[in-house]
Amino acid sequence: MTDARTTAQDQVDALEEVPPSLVQTVRDDLEHGRIEAIRAAVSDMSPAGVAYLLEQVPREERTQLFGILKRDLDPETLVELDDAIRDTVFEELDPSEIVEAARELDTDDAADIIEDLSAAEREEVLAGLPAADRAAIEETLAYPEGTAGRLMQRALVAVPDTWTVGEVIDHCREARDLPDDVYDLFVVDDQRRLVGAISLGRMLRTKRPVPVRDILDPEIPSIPVSAGQAEVAHVFRDQNLVSCPIVDEENRLLGVIMVDDVLDVIDEEAEDDLLRLGGVAQGDVHAPVIRTTRQRFWWLLVNLGTALLASAVIGQFEAELQKIVALAVLMPIVASMGGNAGTQTVTVAVRALAMGELTVANAARFVAKEVAVGGANGLMFAVLVGVVTWVWFHDLRIGMIIAAAMVINLVAAGLAGTLIPLGLKRAGIDPAVSSTVFLTTVTDVVGFVAFLGLAAIFLL
Amino acid sequence: MTDARTTAQDQVDALEEVPPSLVQTVRDDLEHGRIEAIRAAVSDMSPAGVAYLLEQVPREERTQLFGILKRDLDPETLVELDDAIRDTVFEELDPSEIVEAARELDTDDAADIIEDLSAAEREEVLAGLPAADRAAIEETLAYPEGTAGRLMQRALVAVPDTWTVGEVIDHCREARDLPDDVYDLFVVDDQRRLVGAISLGRMLRTKRPVPVRDILDPEIPSIPVSAGQAEVAHVFRDQNLVSCPIVDEENRLLGVIMVDDVLDVIDEEAEDDLLRLGGVAQGDVHAPVIRTTRQRFWWLLVNLGTALLASAVIGQFEAELQKIVALAVLMPIVASMGGNAGTQTVTVAVRALAMGELTVANAARFVAKEVAVGGANGLMFAVLVGVVTWVWFHDLRIGMIIAAAMVINLVAAGLAGTLIPLGLKRAGIDPAVSSTVFLTTVTDVVGFVAFLGLAAIFLL
Repeated sequence: MTDARTTAQDQVDALEEVPPSLVQTVRDDLEHGRIEAIRAAVSDMSPAGVAYLLEQVPREERTQLFGILKRDLDPETLVELDDAIRDTVFEELDPSEIVEAARELDTDDAADIIEDLSAAEREEVLAGLPAADRAAIEETLAYPEGTAGRLMQRALVAVPDTWTVGEVIDHCREARDLPDDVYDLFVVDDQRRLVGAISLGRMLRTKRPVPVRDILDPEIPSIPVSAGQAEVAHVFRDQNLVSCPIVDEENRLLGVIMVDDVLDVIDEEAEDDLLRLGGVAQGDVHAPVIRTTRQRFWWLLVNLGTALLASAVIGQFEAELQKIVALAVLMPIVASMGGNAGTQTVTVAVRALAMGELTVANAARFVAKEVAVGGANGLMFAVLVGVVTWVWFHDLRIGMIIAAAMVINLVAAGLAGTLIPLGLKRAGIDPAVSSTVFLTTVTDVVGFVAFLGLAAIFLL
Repeated sequence: MTDARTTAQDQVDALEEVPPSLVQTVRDDLEHGRIEAIRAAVSDMSPAGVAYLLEQVPREERTQLFGILKRDLDPETLVELDDAIRDTVFEELDPSEIVEAARELDTDDAADIIEDLSAAEREEVLAGLPAADRAAIEETLAYPEGTAGRLMQRALVAVPDTWTVGEVIDHCREARDLPDDVYDLFVVDDQRRLVGAISLGRMLRTKRPVPVRDILDPEIPSIPVSAGQAEVAHVFRDQNLVSCPIVDEENRLLGVIMVDDVLDVIDEEAEDDLLRLGGVAQGDVHAPVIRTTRQRFWWLLVNLGTALLASAVIGQFEAELQKIVALAVLMPIVASMGGNAGTQTVTVAVRALAMGELTVANAARFVAKEVAVGGANGLMFAVLVGVVTWVWFHDLRIGMIIAAAMVINLVAAGLAGTLIPLGLKRAGIDPAVSSTVFLTTVTDVVGFVAFLGLAAIFLL
């Protein structure tokens, strides 16, 4: 039993293609110039594994390592690399080497890596490619980033709606450059308008003389080329798709998006929301210190504005603070609890907005619920903090004042935590970016004004 | 031009299967008892669309709506429903109706919906199912939630390694219960051990007499049944898979995981991190007020501990606060900036840990970078806040003290923001859940102690 379990754990560990110990081994090999050992260690790795290894070592070693590996590098590795790391790696490549890599890639992937080059390098690389590839890549780059047009690949199997199953199979057997990852065949009319799709499983089970028209699924979803990537992810998620045809306004078949590209989109969208809520930019991990410092500076500057506003509010109560120092000691509690409760609400609202679960249809109910939750928790914490304060400062009145302020601020947090993201969304601003700043402004101001204001009225 | 654009936008809008206006129409129809109109509106919707509609209407209307729809409901709809909503909807179904739905579903999906039932209902539903389905579902439920065993489906095509392509095609044509969503065929030996896989595209392009042994890909990845769902997502992501075989410790083929189940996992994992960082639980949007209040209470209680600790720290400086009221006015600034800077760092660290980008191999570099970023932004904000304070209170010394405290706290934030998630991860605790509490404890205490402590030393 123990034995079997160990095996299972080993299997799970083996899923980690590049464990930290392997990274360390490669770094040691690098230090001691054991180039063949490195080549051997890397030879079986997937492109994602090699990319991960390059990301894990420090910059100088990465340059060295890339120099050793570039001779037999799978071009897919360049696609898998983080943008910031890819920039540093490209400095080690001649344009002619980038051309060679781009030739071997799908045009959507080639467009991805070419996009990051300087305008001059981009020209040079494009000029080195065969005319058909160059045209396809330029067309891809003409679609805005983050749209279906940019995500799609052009390589697909489209057959006329007049063919039979046998003709399709013969076509597949003869064509040499069929993409490997075909799961559906698309059927088009003489205007290349999408008529339907046939899954390969269906093809395989059908006799040769049957016309494709008889077995195609006419109700397959298609996505317009101008759709945003979040919508693309939505469609794949809701319909459990593996591939989806992309069409223009006249329903003409332009390309296909595969589910593995959608996995990347979903990761990216989820990461965006998470990082924006935390006030950081995408790609932060691999960015150099100076860029990270600069990117984060602006978020902190906005927050400094909030903090100074809070201080200005407190400054209005200098007289009270001077008379009752307990107020200064206690005042951060109400503001901090409001900030935390409001962050809970904002987090739920931002995620629900991103997933399409929060809409105008149920917004009123959502706000009402959050205010109720704020009120309920406000009452519980009011009792708790009121008693603690009473015992600590032997003053029932301060306890009652902080309790009242707590209820007020947690209800305000529920209101602000819902109305701010909903309002930003309506104004066309990404609620993940700015909701928390506005929220803490509200909870700080309401928290300090409620507590110190009530104290000014009832204690002095 | 304008016309084409409008069309494109219309197409994009049409991707939203259930726009808010449709939700409103259905609610109106419901209010006026227009049952046929509702049935017509829903008849073309995907299961995900119907599930979404049910989630969008208030509870009483949902019960009504479900009563109208349940007669022709696609059982997939139950799978797509949010857990909390599914509970309320199941109350409207007899066990016999649940049995009927479960019969039509894949066993992995059936296990999913049966799991939520009470023990008694679960027994009743299982007893109503055919023996083979019951066994499969019970076996699925025997695997812990969140493992490959729970995610996999048993329906797959496995063929002996002694067959030819022709035999496989004939087998597929004859078998009636082949799953629709087959993309790869698996080849096994006489012990049912996995030998390799063949993509359908490859099958289609190969002549009938060729033995499958000659065209199978022996290097396909497989995942052990005990692997966690995060690892499953990792493998799919890195290797761009559409389906992946699941094996036991002896490499025997047990089932297959399809990429659409992995999409759900990726969504769930990303959502978990986001919500935990914000201090809320999964499924919060659809939970009733009381449950939400209770779930959030605990997070707020922990934060109250932090706030009280901060107050206790401030309480140590009552004498100083009484003498210089400016200290009370300014003291939240340093703590708040530290909290925000630390949250930026924690967000990056939690995401990088979840994605496997931050490991022991590069932890030291990551910590050093974050401390450097904290120091750099600390210096800039020290100058900024120092000057503002000097001008505001006409006191250079207070300005210098708040500047020094700012640098100290932002460096502390960089250290704590990295070491806390790394330490929690090492201790086997989810860093997304508790990092921010520990972080704000550090930044509050360091912030108040640095500012008030320096003031006590140099001002009095």
